[in-house]
Amino acid sequence: MDSDSEKNLNKVTVRVPGTSANCGPGFDCLGLAATIYNDLELTLLKEENLIIDAHGDGAETIPTDEKNIIWKAARMILDRSGNGDKFKGAILKMQNNIPMSRGLGSSAAAIVAGLTAANEIVGKPFTKKDILKFATEIEGHPDNVAPAIYGGFTISTVDKFNVQTFSFLPKIRLKLIVAVPDFPLSTRIARQVLPKTVSMKDAVFNVSRASMLVAALMQGKENFLTTAFDDAIHQPYRTKLVPGMQEVFQAAKKEGALGVCLSGAGPCLIAFSTTNKHIENNIAVEMVQAFKKNDVQANALILDLDTRGAYVLN
Amino acid sequence: MDSDSEKNLNKVTVRVPGTSANCGPGFDCLGLAATIYNDLELTLLKEENLIIDAHGDGAETIPTDEKNIIWKAARMILDRSGNGDKFKGAILKMQNNIPMSRGLGSSAAAIVAGLTAANEIVGKPFTKKDILKFATEIEGHPDNVAPAIYGGFTISTVDKFNVQTFSFLPKIRLKLIVAVPDFPLSTRIARQVLPKTVSMKDAVFNVSRASMLVAALMQGKENFLTTAFDDAIHQPYRTKLVPGMQEVFQAAKKEGALGVCLSGAGPCLIAFSTTNKHIENNIAVEMVQAFKKNDVQANALILDLDTRGAYVLN
Repeated sequence: MDSDSEKNLNKVTVRVPGTSANCGPGFDCLGLAATIYNDLELTLLKEENLIIDAHGDGAETIPTDEKNIIWKAARMILDRSGNGDKFKGAILKMQNNIPMSRGLGSSAAAIVAGLTAANEIVGKPFTKKDILKFATEIEGHPDNVAPAIYGGFTISTVDKFNVQTFSFLPKIRLKLIVAVPDFPLSTRIARQVLPKTVSMKDAVFNVSRASMLVAALMQGKENFLTTAFDDAIHQPYRTKLVPGMQEVFQAAKKEGALGVCLSGAGPCLIAFSTTNKHIENNIAVEMVQAFKKNDVQANALILDLDTRGAYVLN
Repeated sequence: MDSDSEKNLNKVTVRVPGTSANCGPGFDCLGLAATIYNDLELTLLKEENLIIDAHGDGAETIPTDEKNIIWKAARMILDRSGNGDKFKGAILKMQNNIPMSRGLGSSAAAIVAGLTAANEIVGKPFTKKDILKFATEIEGHPDNVAPAIYGGFTISTVDKFNVQTFSFLPKIRLKLIVAVPDFPLSTRIARQVLPKTVSMKDAVFNVSRASMLVAALMQGKENFLTTAFDDAIHQPYRTKLVPGMQEVFQAAKKEGALGVCLSGAGPCLIAFSTTNKHIENNIAVEMVQAFKKNDVQANALILDLDTRGAYVLN
């Protein structure tokens, strides 16, 4: 076998969706996957050599050394499957469409891409549930990695010993109108502004809305969704980090959005719609306009729910 | 028309299920209805005369004057439908099977019985949603009145202007094993022990479990239910009010219960099982035994989920 065909055996391309955590009331437990993707072509090498070739959103900021998170994830698979000595290097070719550091799960996508691709090359020793566990170890929480792996809407619970994710597709045609501001927001800073305690009233507010959101999506009961995306335990504290947040929410609702929320830790804002293309376009335009009035340049994406999660392309 | 046939026109019998609020993580928003019922025969009278005839659980403690909550509920319907002058009195015959002040919604059942029966007699001017609104006004929260009206599992949200209840039946055969201690517990006292604030971690714990509980019940995914009945924001504070609570929980789980929780504000404890009669009986016996070891006399009920809510019998 010559070197080229060996490389083909050690090469795989995976596609991973962007994701949005929290979905309003489901702070640190609900998530969804959207139809915007990063592609990774991973070639594992015997020799200790790391070649990273990134294209697309934020390509110039991606670490090209051992700190690269995709390579870190891939190595976790190699080490835990006993292939750490077999493959010591890699060629990573990325095509990134998910905006970086905007609350659309670009780092979760990178982690899941590295894990899924390496797992495929070494013969799939690990299940999706294993991948979820590993990805949660790296990311620290399952909010984004869970929908990136499973697709659809996800509910995740974490305890000392276990991460569990329930994935489902709503019985409803749901469009996501995402306003993407031109500034990044660090998740670390967005966590620092949160209080350590919340009032019992606010906790009950979120428990009831998250339960209602899951139920209404599962059974496709649109009339129960109008207040189900509301939140009281994280978004109010993060308003100051995203200039114009409330105005953008109001603009989207005025144009007919069913619900609105901060995407993950922000700064992206999402409006949900079940109506038609015309209204979706209007919502997008008005969200961008409302940001502009607050001196924030933004663009809009109109996305569907991804129904598949990460998968191998070739 | 003679007086007797007039009375028959003004007479109706309704059956209302017992209910359990919270269901573990769904503090102040989730509820369920169970196959244990109070029957009310209501006769509305033109004259200002109140005759109350109560049989069954706690009959001797029921107020027989204007303070009676069934009569209070019935009068709300009469007043709001413009029949306050037409009917000034009533005969109330009750057959009560729901244990009183034990956390099984006996007061919610009384309210819903009075509202439903009076609404029927005056020609049903009000919908179930109206009844929910009125019942919530009287009770102060929808946790028990919602499942008493709709049956099944319920999710309720409250805001300044509106109460919304989503009712559903799980895709799973779910048995309720209820241990009923021989002492009453006032909801007021059970609320006093709760803190005004909870940690963000505990709030997220409940948001994630309640969401998981709703999803797993709706899709009948039993393996996701094992941690979904857990709670961190009210039960830990109420443990001291129900001697042996943790031991009863452990005993039920040891015998194969899928999940356990405090019923409403207690003192009833509920175990959930999806297996068989033999195991259900064992769970019941061991729950009662565990209470006994803590010097609490208790009896056990093995119930199904009520699927119908309050209804008119004749």
